[in-house]
Amino acid sequence: MNPCKIYLKKGEEVRIQEGHPWVFSNEIDHIVGFIKSGELAYVYAFDDTFLGKGYLNTNSKIFVRILSSEDIEIDEAFFKAKILKAKQAREGLGYQNSYRAFFGESDGIPGLIIDKYGDYLSIQILSLGIDQRKEMFIQILVSIFNPKGILERSDVSVRTKEGLEPFKGVIYGEVPPKVIIKENELTMSVDLMNGQKTGFFLDQQDNHNAVKPYVKDKNVLDCFANIGGFGLHAAYHGAKKVTCVDISALAVSDILNNAKLNGFTQVEAIEKDVFDQLRAYQKEGKTFDTIILDPPAFAKNKDAIKRAYQGYKDINLQAMKIIEDGGYLYTCSCSHYMTIDLFLQMLQDAARDAKKKVQMVEMRIQSKDHPALLGSDESLYLKCVILRVMNA
Amino acid sequence: MNPCKIYLKKGEEVRIQEGHPWVFSNEIDHIVGFIKSGELAYVYAFDDTFLGKGYLNTNSKIFVRILSSEDIEIDEAFFKAKILKAKQAREGLGYQNSYRAFFGESDGIPGLIIDKYGDYLSIQILSLGIDQRKEMFIQILVSIFNPKGILERSDVSVRTKEGLEPFKGVIYGEVPPKVIIKENELTMSVDLMNGQKTGFFLDQQDNHNAVKPYVKDKNVLDCFANIGGFGLHAAYHGAKKVTCVDISALAVSDILNNAKLNGFTQVEAIEKDVFDQLRAYQKEGKTFDTIILDPPAFAKNKDAIKRAYQGYKDINLQAMKIIEDGGYLYTCSCSHYMTIDLFLQMLQDAARDAKKKVQMVEMRIQSKDHPALLGSDESLYLKCVILRVMNA
Repeated sequence: MNPCKIYLKKGEEVRIQEGHPWVFSNEIDHIVGFIKSGELAYVYAFDDTFLGKGYLNTNSKIFVRILSSEDIEIDEAFFKAKILKAKQAREGLGYQNSYRAFFGESDGIPGLIIDKYGDYLSIQILSLGIDQRKEMFIQILVSIFNPKGILERSDVSVRTKEGLEPFKGVIYGEVPPKVIIKENELTMSVDLMNGQKTGFFLDQQDNHNAVKPYVKDKNVLDCFANIGGFGLHAAYHGAKKVTCVDISALAVSDILNNAKLNGFTQVEAIEKDVFDQLRAYQKEGKTFDTIILDPPAFAKNKDAIKRAYQGYKDINLQAMKIIEDGGYLYTCSCSHYMTIDLFLQMLQDAARDAKKKVQMVEMRIQSKDHPALLGSDESLYLKCVILRVMNA
Repeated sequence: MNPCKIYLKKGEEVRIQEGHPWVFSNEIDHIVGFIKSGELAYVYAFDDTFLGKGYLNTNSKIFVRILSSEDIEIDEAFFKAKILKAKQAREGLGYQNSYRAFFGESDGIPGLIIDKYGDYLSIQILSLGIDQRKEMFIQILVSIFNPKGILERSDVSVRTKEGLEPFKGVIYGEVPPKVIIKENELTMSVDLMNGQKTGFFLDQQDNHNAVKPYVKDKNVLDCFANIGGFGLHAAYHGAKKVTCVDISALAVSDILNNAKLNGFTQVEAIEKDVFDQLRAYQKEGKTFDTIILDPPAFAKNKDAIKRAYQGYKDINLQAMKIIEDGGYLYTCSCSHYMTIDLFLQMLQDAARDAKKKVQMVEMRIQSKDHPALLGSDESLYLKCVILRVMNA
């Protein structure tokens, strides 16, 4: 049976030609042939120009996720070559022990994420086409990475949009409750089964290390510290004292455990709500030389931006108020709805209300092993801006 | 005689309160008192809120450049403290031999730029208020930096907007024709009197060093190479071969001289127009693993953006075409009119026309010693985007 042909409405081809691999159902003009979710479809512009081929899913607003803009065979060898190429790119950039080995759309297989944590892999599958071929991908991963175990962390609600149930479990070999990884030069114990995302915020690896210029001999506050990625890197790069704040008791115990693993004695971790704690410090008159803000995504969808903006503004404003004159604020947002422009506007807004004069010293995005796909706004999601905060 | 009071039109105070230090003449509602160019003025919002004080210039569209948002004494001690504080901030970030010691508006003295090149200073004065007090600033600089010589590189046409003549000359001590500086770990010979800006593109110092992940054992092309900042750092970080292209014969001889100074034997420099040369390489079928594009500002004013966009697109498109599959494009724009969004749009546009699939691996701004002032768009001017370029 021949794969179906999907013709887009006039003009809808532009985004696809610019490299965005999603065809939305409302962009389709007409379909020729028999369609079946999870199978290949050929996508054409209105004028019959071939745009690409990919798996379709009639249950999803993302009707087709394009795998190739050329009419080549989509088989095991195709996927294996893509995954191998992405791995080699990371190795070429110097990543060794732990890194995002494959980043879905950006690396050319929409809906597939592969993270390497030392000897283990943790993967996430977000599209039906990939989910139906899970066994084949396990074979490919074993042949390329030879891991001791593969965990699937597809426990995300976005799967339901594809008609897939959330799933979490070991799908190959064995995965211990705690895996020891190297993050840059640090040793970290991570709980892949219960940690954030696929086990850890690997996307901050480069940014964690980039605290170096701002922490030596400094009194550092790490807010939303999770298992201590920023705070422990601050300690590694010579911070005098590091205070990690996280609302989760588990995070606090993980931070202290990881501090111990690395022999850091200047790290403390407290179980508090960051919004409250920043105000408490202000009340006490406590200040810091460098503050790190790495909050969860306050804006998880477009409608939530306004409230999210206020949330981001609040923590940045409160943090600015308790930074020593000439100290640094290392502030992040991992929501792609919070665009760079909006993020900068929010910081300006916060600075005015805090009555601080603020220099932007650096602007960074997610780690190099999480490359954004040019033409796909969703994939550029993490921003880190480093500010020098001065009393006006 | 009391300084004059300048009252702004309703609403015009917002930008000032957000940290932008310029009061434009068309924002003024009325003035109370006697005004004299080069003297201090007090600036108020329409509702009599004090906004700040600074030097005024009736010849300039920038009528007042605010020095302080508080009513404090503006004297030698005020300026000395500002300059000392900025120097200490750079030293705190690890800068030692050569760096921008003071960045005008961003560091709190609009119109004053101080660059340190080893034992020498090169300064630029862009406002009347500062120009009238040049002798005082020389005293301050001598007391803080104890330089062997100070060069003034105020040979820029923008001075005429302040009613000032362009000027270039040694204003203290002696400055040799060639000064040897350290840029990161490299030794560079720079011609302060005739080099770009105040002698060299110091604003790329961090970005020059950040080529590290993209050059080891690679065949690298450095376009618009100037005296070789990017290309020589590529050689330092292990490039197999580096080809520098610049239209200036002087630049080519400087590159070769600096390669020699650092003992690099894998660097060649050719005197060619980059637009032509990229096309020539394509014709020859010559490719590179990593290409660096660091063009001069194509858009020097707002009206020139459209043409500039085409210029940027052309070189990026041509470069993408001759990058090996999976190679890197390290592409910069130093025009603040070319916003981040516009720059990314241009790159997407170029990628589509080059029929390449492109990942954004990093986004960077000017070096940390050139901090942008939040709230002052002009001061965020340099963007470097690092792309991984793949055959579609």
